[in-house]
Amino acid sequence: MLQPSVCASKGDEYMSRFWNQRTASLTPYVAGEQPLPGQKVIKLNTNENPYPPSPAIGKHIKDFDPSKLRLYPELTSRTLREAIADFYGVRPGQVFCGNGSDEVLAFSFQAFFETKEGARPIFFPDITYSFYPVYANLYAIPVEKIPLNEDFTIPVDEFCRPSGGVAISNPNAPTTLALPLADIKKILESQPDRLVLIDQAYAAFGAESCVCLLPDHPNLLVIGTLSKSHSLAGLRVGYAIASEEIIEGLQRVRDSFNSYPVDTLALELATLSVRDKNWYEENTRRIISTRETTVKRLTNIGFTVLDSRANFLFVKPDGIPAGELYKKLRAAGILVRYFDKSRIRDYLRITIGTDEEMDILITAIQTIISDKSAAESPYTVGTITKIDEVTT
Amino acid sequence: MLQPSVCASKGDEYMSRFWNQRTASLTPYVAGEQPLPGQKVIKLNTNENPYPPSPAIGKHIKDFDPSKLRLYPELTSRTLREAIADFYGVRPGQVFCGNGSDEVLAFSFQAFFETKEGARPIFFPDITYSFYPVYANLYAIPVEKIPLNEDFTIPVDEFCRPSGGVAISNPNAPTTLALPLADIKKILESQPDRLVLIDQAYAAFGAESCVCLLPDHPNLLVIGTLSKSHSLAGLRVGYAIASEEIIEGLQRVRDSFNSYPVDTLALELATLSVRDKNWYEENTRRIISTRETTVKRLTNIGFTVLDSRANFLFVKPDGIPAGELYKKLRAAGILVRYFDKSRIRDYLRITIGTDEEMDILITAIQTIISDKSAAESPYTVGTITKIDEVTT
Repeated sequence: MLQPSVCASKGDEYMSRFWNQRTASLTPYVAGEQPLPGQKVIKLNTNENPYPPSPAIGKHIKDFDPSKLRLYPELTSRTLREAIADFYGVRPGQVFCGNGSDEVLAFSFQAFFETKEGARPIFFPDITYSFYPVYANLYAIPVEKIPLNEDFTIPVDEFCRPSGGVAISNPNAPTTLALPLADIKKILESQPDRLVLIDQAYAAFGAESCVCLLPDHPNLLVIGTLSKSHSLAGLRVGYAIASEEIIEGLQRVRDSFNSYPVDTLALELATLSVRDKNWYEENTRRIISTRETTVKRLTNIGFTVLDSRANFLFVKPDGIPAGELYKKLRAAGILVRYFDKSRIRDYLRITIGTDEEMDILITAIQTIISDKSAAESPYTVGTITKIDEVTT
Repeated sequence: MLQPSVCASKGDEYMSRFWNQRTASLTPYVAGEQPLPGQKVIKLNTNENPYPPSPAIGKHIKDFDPSKLRLYPELTSRTLREAIADFYGVRPGQVFCGNGSDEVLAFSFQAFFETKEGARPIFFPDITYSFYPVYANLYAIPVEKIPLNEDFTIPVDEFCRPSGGVAISNPNAPTTLALPLADIKKILESQPDRLVLIDQAYAAFGAESCVCLLPDHPNLLVIGTLSKSHSLAGLRVGYAIASEEIIEGLQRVRDSFNSYPVDTLALELATLSVRDKNWYEENTRRIISTRETTVKRLTNIGFTVLDSRANFLFVKPDGIPAGELYKKLRAAGILVRYFDKSRIRDYLRITIGTDEEMDILITAIQTIISDKSAAESPYTVGTITKIDEVTT
């Protein structure tokens, strides 16, 4: 039998003598919990799109010739880059595709931000996508976290000071607030020799895209994903849009890591999905409409709801602490995301689901607040306690 | 219009003021060339499997419900890890899955080999998979390249000296020669506190798997891929097998980089493929049989052919320089791989295709050697000169 050779323990974790120094010092990202197969839950915790992807995908899968899989994928993701370029009105050479926007973000942190001794720190908000500090730690990039204002807006002037680069999610996660183009332009102009990364994972749901700023700002790198806007979280396709020279930097890192990050099926399905603009427009309109209705209903029951430009809400409950509401919703089979972190532990992040799912959510919240037990909820799932096991 | 802001040029390449120091210093891996869509070529240059994958895959694709793609993939690739664990007779916790074995190799170099000042260099052969030096450069890992013996065998004792770790491809690429288990055991025992990475990308075609050494050697990390042995190069699925503590090291790096590297479709299709052991055995038998016939035929026309345990051959032509034969085969629509590098520039790497493809290859070689022009080859493709354009 294999004996684990544990050399040191640190809280619940163990370290191995085979890990290098950096691996031992990592604090990995923790993704939202996933239900086990067969568990019926309302999943409003990882900002997935509640609707199936473009019907063009289902048709193409049925006709797909599996013998194609014996060959490596097309090396440059050409068809997908062309589709994304058409979508945004840029050149295909300005587009880079990767295995989800997480990979594209990781490549970007690795390719552009300096790790050397004495390098200026990069800036990102203290409250933002929690993968940014993880990337910075992985690549030993110095960081200065800029505190958001009291109302969770971004203090734009703070991002205009000399830096090693900037990373901003727009709209920001989990706060849902978006920066106007003029503010992004101001940041871009304040540091023409530093890369400014704008992560538009959720921009389809109401933020202004800053791709139009590219012609005048060679220091801009825009990151996008098909996970939310195209209902393709399971396919792992993300992209970057920038000047050709920045895109070449990403290609150099990719070709030093994994030549073919986008598989053949993902490439073909993603291309069709991006080309189906009608589906995209109808889908985002539908989600925005559900969001606006949900905002009204939550406001009516006294919740504070930030002005969302995303497919999720950031809300402060009334009459019950956020952590308690999170647990009670969970016991009732409704998953939302709760961050037990300074400044945001009074808030919940709630993904916009279907109208029906939001009805069930609101009813459950009202039931919980009026102090009925969660067991009486119309949507109780017996096995829900097991989901802890699959949380990493 | 966007103006590229080139700050320095270096031969054919340009560098950007937005790239960091390391990005500018990278020498990326160059994958084998890919024909353009519609080009009819015989592709013996990237060690792909000439046969379609398990028929279970085609069936599953047809029945796949595309609405599943709206959700993130299962976080731990559980079903696939279970299938691989069953295949090798290990526990699922000993298996890690990634986006092709290139990604798994990159994570391994990053997780286990030290980059700090004064760290002992890792060892790998001077002639081996050319991604190893690329990874080492990407992660600033000190390296000592150990020269292969004159006959391209691995000088085992040299790998038993104090090191920062070891990486060996077994069978080795492009030399096709395999180390016996006893030699791997000797290396493992010589440095019990250093990680020994054995890359078994091609082991299915005749090398002994060293997974059986795991119970006694916690410093062993075995890497595998479905690209060749399972005809799934286009799906991008690779894996690692090791002790749980080493696997946890890989998980930490993955979760600091990209939480979901294996997409939902790849996960399901790869699982079915690994479970179809009959297909696997029949397919590898068939390729080995074609290989042995091809070895005899090439030996008969005077070529030196190394003792291959892989799905490709490493051959020294007779009567024509390797580089010239490579070019003439290419002009005749047959792609093989040529490395214009010290020690191996007299050799060609030739993937084992179908029996029919090998017939065409041998006929073309005979035609070329008997000094007929390539234009008279029975398999000339007019547009072949265009493939240069897609070589990165």
